[in-house]
Amino acid sequence: MKNAKRISANEAARLVRDGSVLMAGGFGMTGNPVHLLHALAETGVKGLTYVGNNVGERGLGAGRLLRNGQIKRAIGSYFTSNREAVAAAQEKRIEVELLPQGTLAEAIRAGGAGIGGFFTPTSSGTLLAKGKETRMIGGAEQVFVQGLRADVAFVRAWRADTAGNLVYRLTEQNFNRAMATAADVVVAEVEEIVPLGALAPGEIHTPSLYVDYLVEAHTTLEDLGSSASVDPDAQKADATRLRMARRALAELRPGEIVNLGVGIPTLVAELVTPDHGLMLHTENGMLGVGPAPSAGGALEHPVNAGKVPVTELLGASYFDSADSFAMIRGGHVDVAVMGGLEVDGQGNLANWAVPGKPLLGVGGAMDLASGAKRLIVTMMHTAPSGAPKLVRECSLPLTARGAVDVVITDLAVFRFQDRRMRLVELAPGVTIDEVRAKTSAPFTA
Amino acid sequence: MKNAKRISANEAARLVRDGSVLMAGGFGMTGNPVHLLHALAETGVKGLTYVGNNVGERGLGAGRLLRNGQIKRAIGSYFTSNREAVAAAQEKRIEVELLPQGTLAEAIRAGGAGIGGFFTPTSSGTLLAKGKETRMIGGAEQVFVQGLRADVAFVRAWRADTAGNLVYRLTEQNFNRAMATAADVVVAEVEEIVPLGALAPGEIHTPSLYVDYLVEAHTTLEDLGSSASVDPDAQKADATRLRMARRALAELRPGEIVNLGVGIPTLVAELVTPDHGLMLHTENGMLGVGPAPSAGGALEHPVNAGKVPVTELLGASYFDSADSFAMIRGGHVDVAVMGGLEVDGQGNLANWAVPGKPLLGVGGAMDLASGAKRLIVTMMHTAPSGAPKLVRECSLPLTARGAVDVVITDLAVFRFQDRRMRLVELAPGVTIDEVRAKTSAPFTA
Repeated sequence: MKNAKRISANEAARLVRDGSVLMAGGFGMTGNPVHLLHALAETGVKGLTYVGNNVGERGLGAGRLLRNGQIKRAIGSYFTSNREAVAAAQEKRIEVELLPQGTLAEAIRAGGAGIGGFFTPTSSGTLLAKGKETRMIGGAEQVFVQGLRADVAFVRAWRADTAGNLVYRLTEQNFNRAMATAADVVVAEVEEIVPLGALAPGEIHTPSLYVDYLVEAHTTLEDLGSSASVDPDAQKADATRLRMARRALAELRPGEIVNLGVGIPTLVAELVTPDHGLMLHTENGMLGVGPAPSAGGALEHPVNAGKVPVTELLGASYFDSADSFAMIRGGHVDVAVMGGLEVDGQGNLANWAVPGKPLLGVGGAMDLASGAKRLIVTMMHTAPSGAPKLVRECSLPLTARGAVDVVITDLAVFRFQDRRMRLVELAPGVTIDEVRAKTSAPFTA
Repeated sequence: MKNAKRISANEAARLVRDGSVLMAGGFGMTGNPVHLLHALAETGVKGLTYVGNNVGERGLGAGRLLRNGQIKRAIGSYFTSNREAVAAAQEKRIEVELLPQGTLAEAIRAGGAGIGGFFTPTSSGTLLAKGKETRMIGGAEQVFVQGLRADVAFVRAWRADTAGNLVYRLTEQNFNRAMATAADVVVAEVEEIVPLGALAPGEIHTPSLYVDYLVEAHTTLEDLGSSASVDPDAQKADATRLRMARRALAELRPGEIVNLGVGIPTLVAELVTPDHGLMLHTENGMLGVGPAPSAGGALEHPVNAGKVPVTELLGASYFDSADSFAMIRGGHVDVAVMGGLEVDGQGNLANWAVPGKPLLGVGGAMDLASGAKRLIVTMMHTAPSGAPKLVRECSLPLTARGAVDVVITDLAVFRFQDRRMRLVELAPGVTIDEVRAKTSAPFTA
């Protein structure tokens, strides 16, 4: 029987060299090997290529490496949650490679599985596919992505046995499970090391052969950053946004698997009752999401894709990011509800990037927009400037082509069929003339 | 909350139509949806494309569909275990597509995950890559494989809850887990349906969204075919084979992850003690394989790659075929020990096909030969005819190119370096002249 070697966080940090490729697990600050990253921040190691979904938060986790100037290049899906990372990229202090969240997870899994590369429909026809090889497979344009590997992976698990078998807790599998397969040296930071035999063989998430080193470290509220507790103000929403959320809920049918994005879609989760017969999916690795808890945070609860603590319903299940996006990409999620910056008359959606704005990240939006069977966009009808958001042709970078099925705004509801937009409903007190005046996209009524 | 619909095996059978593509889980008869397949055998449905690792056993499981003439085409990795399937293929009563076991598992996973296709190093330079697109990635030639999907998947799990969440038992995950993601309609045959909440959310192997129908059916000894019980004669081996197994064991170093093929390599498992510090991997989904049990069969024990019941050591873990071959292909298995039909002077290995012989299947041999870090071949020095098996150039279809590191025969031990063979040891009482006379491959001494 091989044993994983038990070391300190400082010893783990010394496994990383100048110029190393470092993978670090975590979805925001949940399931994040914070103690290993903070130990690395105490070293002079620099020139790192960092692979992770986010760059931690400000001064926290990988955010501390960033602040120290230890990161040369970052590969990930969503850096917006650390505005220092966005600034560093915009000021060209770091190089950035953005991948859709599901493509990132799949590329890491491929790297660990000895798969040289794969074709995915996600990001087809968008800026992120620019310059990449594409081919038609099964009637859809697919983009070629190579497997990703690292010199060292820092992962975070809940329990390990002395052999190195790992079990993750709640939504903390996220990128950890795939990263543990994809590096030459793997260090697992864990809450507790238990004796051999204490973990049931059928419940092990990461088999021992992947894990070289174990570091025991306890998660504190501070480590969890913005996920540490529910924000009591978060559920407050004005009547208009609540009405839009209710209208979105009315589109959902019993038995459907539904993924809710951040913003107005999150409000839908609070309106769902068991009678609706829905099953909510969150792309960070959970099926069976319940409403927000009244108290507590990520120490007690799973989190949703907004990194906000949520409750677990009976019949829930947890999985990692690679499996979660396999569900999405494979067409197993019935409906995605997400916000929009622009929707155009051909059903194209733009909602992830605004040139010049401090936004840097696509997250799971492309995967969900192109992978879910039905796409519902909830957004205000016009921008704060008064400019229409339903446009003739999107000017912002696209999230997905021709993917939108329904648009719900504060003024109206539209449906798309054969890439043509049709007005089907006016909000109370709204006239068709007002909608015409505030809509640039052509539509029928 | 969505519920999976509870139906009978006969109702499940009626979901399959003439000409359907049907996936069926199972590794041999373990984790095999036997009751669903037998119900299908009672229908007149024909012209099936069957996707499964094996075609059951004679008259059992998919073997019954074959006997009925219901299968038109079979896609799998190893049909040798049902000689009626081999005969049907050789007499051209069925079409057959052979894939390496890991490529089959990965193609099914890709089909379920919306991945159009992928590049794998497995089978490069062999007959199974003939006519397929290849490209160099990361310094290795890789073969393009498209994702596989089915109209209907029949899977076998141990427990389901009423929502359709599934938990598998021991080595019974095998192909079930990936197949449950890759079909339009998924039916799970399970031993027991438990109430919602009875399965821990972190231990669910197949989340409910994949499962449409549940059929409760109890596994009997008869259903398990050749895996039903240990063969008390199986461990008997002559002194020569035991000596070769002992010599192979001497090549293994503490801490190594080792995969043992069938035949002489299986004997190695019986010689391993905790002092050796080894961890045995079996490609059907287990790490931590112990010696054969003294009694019992697949109702009580996991099985190894020879479908023979084995015991579980402390620290063991179970996983599915896609994850198991990800380990192998990804370079996480240190050593593979397998038999050989021919090894040539360039370190090429042939051990899976003999034209004209009733053998039809490659199983996991290509994945292991090309994926393990070190490859040890154990074989008799000459064929029963007296012809050398260490040849100048393999004449049989290759398993892998230049992959052999060590060859252990009844007469001698050879090592390969830079694709050149060197004699390093003679068996007791064997002269170098005898070895020279019985070896066609050039070697140094």
